[in-house]
Amino acid sequence: MRIPILKLSHYLLVSVQVELDDQTALQFQEDLLNKIHNEGSLGVVIDLTSVDMIDSFIAKVLGDVVDMSGLMGAKVVLTGIQPAVAITLIDMGIKMQNVETALDLEQGLEKLQLELEE
Amino acid sequence: MRIPILKLSHYLLVSVQVELDDQTALQFQEDLLNKIHNEGSLGVVIDLTSVDMIDSFIAKVLGDVVDMSGLMGAKVVLTGIQPAVAITLIDMGIKMQNVETALDLEQGLEKLQLELEE
Repeated sequence: MRIPILKLSHYLLVSVQVELDDQTALQFQEDLLNKIHNEGSLGVVIDLTSVDMIDSFIAKVLGDVVDMSGLMGAKVVLTGIQPAVAITLIDMGIKMQNVETALDLEQGLEKLQLELEE
Repeated sequence: MRIPILKLSHYLLVSVQVELDDQTALQFQEDLLNKIHNEGSLGVVIDLTSVDMIDSFIAKVLGDVVDMSGLMGAKVVLTGIQPAVAITLIDMGIKMQNVETALDLEQGLEKLQLELEE
């Protein structure tokens, strides 16, 4: 199972609408980084609205994806983080520094555009 | 397996990146129509870039989805149709009248915005 990554102009959009098991999360990490490289993307919006909860492994992978994308030059905005997901991320000590958050995909995209125009 | 449907402002974005078997296609049809209804969407972009070929059943479902969405008041733009897909659609007598097409997701979204501004 692969999570689809949509290209829209200089950005990539991802909406996670499946349960994230370990294999899916790692595959997503690899796919996203490859796509950033191939498309020369400036930013990524990852929408987690449909994700009810995550375990510690997925939390780490998510944190890694944000850091890795940043290293490659793509700004990440996470959107729709639910309470249980926020709790797991903070409990795990994953501070998500340098990552913007927003309420939904649309606002995430706007935030990305504003940031990159600066 | 469900195909994720992303909501962006008044539009829905779909990028089909899995092989469309009969069950997946019918589930997609149902999900999309429900989402159009729930979100009050004005338009839908369905990106078929990753779809190499379709069989006659999937071609019919796709044609139906376009017609049904139109009935519900949402304009559909199909993008990234590959040669084999175009051949199957026409061979099946599915003319896709009233449906706009575009090269990729971005151009599809632009087309939709232009049309709806008119």
